[in-house]
Amino acid sequence: MNIGILGTGMVAQTIAPKLVELGHVVMIGTRNVEATLSNTSPNQYGMPPFSEWYKNLKGIDIGTFPDTAAFGEVLMNCTSGGASLDALKSCSEKNLKKKILIDLANPLDFSKGFPPSLSVCNTDSLGEQIQRTFPELKVVKALNTLNASLMINPSLIPADHNLFICGNDESAKVSVVNLLKEFRWKEKNIIDLGDITNARATEMLLPIWVRLYGKYKTPLFNFTMTFGKS
Amino acid sequence: MNIGILGTGMVAQTIAPKLVELGHVVMIGTRNVEATLSNTSPNQYGMPPFSEWYKNLKGIDIGTFPDTAAFGEVLMNCTSGGASLDALKSCSEKNLKKKILIDLANPLDFSKGFPPSLSVCNTDSLGEQIQRTFPELKVVKALNTLNASLMINPSLIPADHNLFICGNDESAKVSVVNLLKEFRWKEKNIIDLGDITNARATEMLLPIWVRLYGKYKTPLFNFTMTFGKS
Repeated sequence: MNIGILGTGMVAQTIAPKLVELGHVVMIGTRNVEATLSNTSPNQYGMPPFSEWYKNLKGIDIGTFPDTAAFGEVLMNCTSGGASLDALKSCSEKNLKKKILIDLANPLDFSKGFPPSLSVCNTDSLGEQIQRTFPELKVVKALNTLNASLMINPSLIPADHNLFICGNDESAKVSVVNLLKEFRWKEKNIIDLGDITNARATEMLLPIWVRLYGKYKTPLFNFTMTFGKS
Repeated sequence: MNIGILGTGMVAQTIAPKLVELGHVVMIGTRNVEATLSNTSPNQYGMPPFSEWYKNLKGIDIGTFPDTAAFGEVLMNCTSGGASLDALKSCSEKNLKKKILIDLANPLDFSKGFPPSLSVCNTDSLGEQIQRTFPELKVVKALNTLNASLMINPSLIPADHNLFICGNDESAKVSVVNLLKEFRWKEKNIIDLGDITNARATEMLLPIWVRLYGKYKTPLFNFTMTFGKS
């Protein structure tokens, strides 16, 4: 399948090669291809520049946001939450029409340092904002509550642990679950919360996620819902 | 120990007899004792009136909020979140001074139906509001992320599952952990997130909690943090 990944950060860099390994054809999208490839400074989190990572890769194209949106049958929003709406707006509506967008982003606000707060929450969410802004996009919120390495390799945690998905389009969610199963997620561990308004609940897991990350100094953890005998 | 429970709802009714069973002396506090005992209507959740529950009980006193605050060496805020600050304000500051308050409440806003949103979140929390309003109270946020039956009987879920606590006073947190251990919580499953500002993270677990409750039709579940091999 042709998959367009919007964003060039850690999540994109983790997911893209995995998708290629699984046999998909991947394009990574950025605002300005030249600028992305010529930037040689580490990013805000101290990661090596995208160009360093990209030069050793084979089989992954890079394009503008509209190129990438046009290319992908399925799109993945791996931009940072504060940049997501602008990135999607720059894609041109015709390239988004009727496509599935897996929204992995969180509206994290680092303006007051760590831990970040959310720039939208409680009665709205980034997932809902994207769905409202692009009504013809089939937005499925997924993979936004855990570290990138776990997204594509859930067995890094030996125990069962959960993914939360939500979205308005049932068949889009089925497609996303199938892709998650390619990443070796067990279907029983994927919890469908319902329509896209439930994105506010999963994005609101980030405040505790970032604190646990601060406490344990590892991103290799996740939420498991455990149930009693009823 | 003398424990003052503020509130008469399901959480208070679940915790109070357990504390008595454990050898504590308990007073339950309400705004108006006469009104609470003479009310014969089910509450907003369809629970039988407090008076029904109370008439069969031995060894638990009922008093006003200030009576209960004066009585308790440790206080537990089991009022509903929207009523907590008023209940505490009515206690009279001298009855709160230097006491530990375990804050179990969540600022749930049911004004738009189910699922509720939060009336405060993200950059503030009920726990922080209480601490700011009563600087001499040692507020420990705890037990606000799970059903009352699990609070006092964690083994209703066979697997390990977690409690999150936070608060500014380290010795108060030690006392609260000791009380939780009387409820048979394993210390290794109690996660101390730090100071009271972390209450915003645990209160923000409620939006997903209420949705999972809606989906699974049981309150007998909890969050377990699962970790990878590092």
